[in-house]
This record gives sequence, structure tokens and C-alpha cells, in this order.
Amino acid sequence: MTSQTSTPTTIGNKEQYYRQYIYHLSKAFWKAIEDDWDNLLKYTNLSIHEYTILTFLNANGNLTISALAQLGLMHISTAQNASHKLQKANYLTLQKSTIDKRTTYATITDKGRKILGDIEQKWDKTDSTLFEKTTNMSQFFGQEPDFREVAILLKSYYGESLFSQMILEEESLATGA
Amino acid sequence: MTSQTSTPTTIGNKEQYYRQYIYHLSKAFWKAIEDDWDNLLKYTNLSIHEYTILTFLNANGNLTISALAQLGLMHISTAQNASHKLQKANYLTLQKSTIDKRTTYATITDKGRKILGDIEQKWDKTDSTLFEKTTNMSQFFGQEPDFREVAILLKSYYGESLFSQMILEEESLATGA
Repeated sequence: MTSQTSTPTTIGNKEQYYRQYIYHLSKAFWKAIEDDWDNLLKYTNLSIHEYTILTFLNANGNLTISALAQLGLMHISTAQNASHKLQKANYLTLQKSTIDKRTTYATITDKGRKILGDIEQKWDKTDSTLFEKTTNMSQFFGQEPDFREVAILLKSYYGESLFSQMILEEESLATGA
Repeated sequence: MTSQTSTPTTIGNKEQYYRQYIYHLSKAFWKAIEDDWDNLLKYTNLSIHEYTILTFLNANGNLTISALAQLGLMHISTAQNASHKLQKANYLTLQKSTIDKRTTYATITDKGRKILGDIEQKWDKTDSTLFEKTTNMSQFFGQEPDFREVAILLKSYYGESLFSQMILEEESLATGA
């Protein structure tokens, strides 16, 4: 073990500290969620991207690949690759627009809807460390954390309209409206 | 455009809705932060992983590769690859432990500390959409959002001790303590 050879660089002013704080906080939040999401999908062959695409299609019936990329915050090539994989597995169909051949629409199939239902049925809250922790928080604070500050920031960052499409509403999940 | 061919699967109960909400919220949060982080590093050749490693080493002097992986929430192979890249660029040195040859310590160099200082100097808050938005929030709410609910959840999820090492304190950033 060598001793420290140089003097720490001061990352010192308040704004720079705040930036580091939210960078690391957000990364740690996403990593915890990603682990839980992987756990949700472990009985399937679906990646998080593929699952996200099916979820948006379930709520919307059909969407263009570029709309899926925008809503799912993916690169267009990621959305394309994931959609083609889902098409091969018969979870969705792809059709070129008759008006503009460069535009491709994805439509979820019954098989696609079925796997979403199966995932929900198999999901067990007690199997999730994350939900154990949010449940503890809700017992302590009287309600589950709604991360309101994050939501306010993101509404402002992405725009109210895109945000409300990205963060699916309870209603749209239930009715597909 | 074909019409919708099947009936939406109900992703309906309150817990399942809540799960979807925090999944998508956290993903959108991380994506916004990641874009800002990329923007911070655009004048360098550093990836987010490499920058994270240098930041932890700046605060701690030296750390094992496995400690870096744990703190930076990376796979061990990601931490190894990033450390080797940083070593090639002379931003850190790597030494095998004399006690246990399987353990490798990384130590930040003066050049490594210098690039962190350069990044801080070049960072311009007005160049960041994210910080424009948090500044707006602080004008409205009287203080910058501290995402307290996220912090409480993550302390509980990762453990208080790991959390406080991962989310670098203002003091440790400034003093390297």
C-alpha cells in the first residue's frame, strides 16, 4: 500500500458539490431500479428496452419506432433493434406507413399483451428489496414516496406533454387509452 | 395505419402502477443526468465511469479496484477496464497489494487531479439545461431540490455507510478526507 502522493483537487464550490450530489444520487437510484427491473424480467427473455416498448404499445395500441425511442429515452437504433427482436418473437408486428415509407409503426399482438399480463401475475412484491424499502418508508411517512421533486424537475426538463406520456398514468395502463 | 387488433392488458393494481411509475421516473431522471454528465466531459476523453473513478480517488487518495466498483456501482470488469485506461493516460497508477497479490490498488496522480480541476474550471452552469431547471426550482421553492426521498430510499437500500461513501460529501470533495 503506497501512501498518498499528491494533494486532492478541491471540487469545492457549492454549485459543483450540488452537481456531484445529484449525479451520484441519480446514478445510484437508477442502478437500484435497474436491479429490480431485471428481477421483474428474469422469467422472460425480455430486456428492459423490449419490456418498455411493449408497455408503451400496450397503453397506446401502436406507435412509430421514433415515438417509441422518444418515449423510452432510447437511441433510435436501440428502439429499432429491440422492435425487430420483439417482432421475431411475435410480440409485435411492424408495418411501413403507406404515406411515408420511412416511417414504421409497431403494433402489439395478443401474444405481446399476454406476456405483459404474465409478468404482472408473477411479480411478487415480497421478492423486491426496493419495494420492501418503499413499504418501510410508507409505514414511516404515512405514504409511499412519490419523488415529487424528481417529477417536477423532469416535467420541466422534458416538457409536460412528453413527461406525461413517458411516465404512464395509472389510467392509461389500466385502459390502454 | 392499421387499427388496434387486441385488447390492452390491464396493468392495473396500485402496487403495479407504482412500480411502473418509479421505474420510468428513475430511468428518465438518470437519462437527463447522463446527458448533463456527458456535456461536462465533452472536452475530455473520459467516460462517466472513468470520471467517477477519478472523483472517488481524488476524495480518498487510493482505493482497491473492488472498492471502486462497489462505490461507483459498476461491474468489477468495468472498473478494471476503466482503471487500465486511466493508467495508460497516466491519470492513476495501479499497484498489486504486497499482502494479497489478487488485490490491486489505484492511486490518483497529479495529472489525474489536474484534469479534475480542469473539468471544474471549464464547467459552466449556464451551459446546462438541467441546472437551468434546478435553478428555476430553487427560485420557486426557495431552495434547490435535494431529492430527500431518493436519498432516504437509497440509504436504506445500500446501507447508510455505503451510501455516504457513494454520495460524496461536500467536505470530502473539498479536503480529500
